[in-house]
Amino acid sequence: MAKLVVTYKTPKDAAAFDAYYANTHIPLAKKLPGLRKYEVSRGPIATPAGPSDIYLIATLSFDSMAALQAAFGSEEGKIAGADVANFATGGADLVFFDTAEV
Amino acid sequence: MAKLVVTYKTPKDAAAFDAYYANTHIPLAKKLPGLRKYEVSRGPIATPAGPSDIYLIATLSFDSMAALQAAFGSEEGKIAGADVANFATGGADLVFFDTAEV
Repeated sequence: MAKLVVTYKTPKDAAAFDAYYANTHIPLAKKLPGLRKYEVSRGPIATPAGPSDIYLIATLSFDSMAALQAAFGSEEGKIAGADVANFATGGADLVFFDTAEV
Repeated sequence: MAKLVVTYKTPKDAAAFDAYYANTHIPLAKKLPGLRKYEVSRGPIATPAGPSDIYLIATLSFDSMAALQAAFGSEEGKIAGADVANFATGGADLVFFDTAEV
């Protein structure tokens, strides 16, 4: 499977982030063509050294890198991508990659 | 599910990293008690702006944060954790979190 991982740093206003993410961004991102699975972290992100500056991690799965790239380039992908700036006040990093179970 | 995500930065010697990861580290990590799924990125990690300084991403899934923390604290977890320093010459970041499908 191919995965798009979005790492959101701690936002300025966590309650506002949570409300916008649940009510606006998830519905937009769920429209991505070819989306197979959409997982969102719940609760704090921890590291071996203690709390992290990462607030939320979203993982979107697609059948292949070609399907992921097609979703990213689609009208729905452009809308969902542009929407990130509306709530990710702490910043967001996107990575995508192919993956296999070992 | 609870996930442990290990992000490896580009190592000094990619071929040596690949060989050690496949032949030594995967077998050690697969001994973690309660490990349900172990996924490893294949090929380059991309970002919207182009190539990433991340070389490899491993995602290990457990039934719960309690199971993940028990695995981390087990003898097998200590051995696998200590092994990272043997090959992650570019550095490695670990995060763990609970996750839900939306």
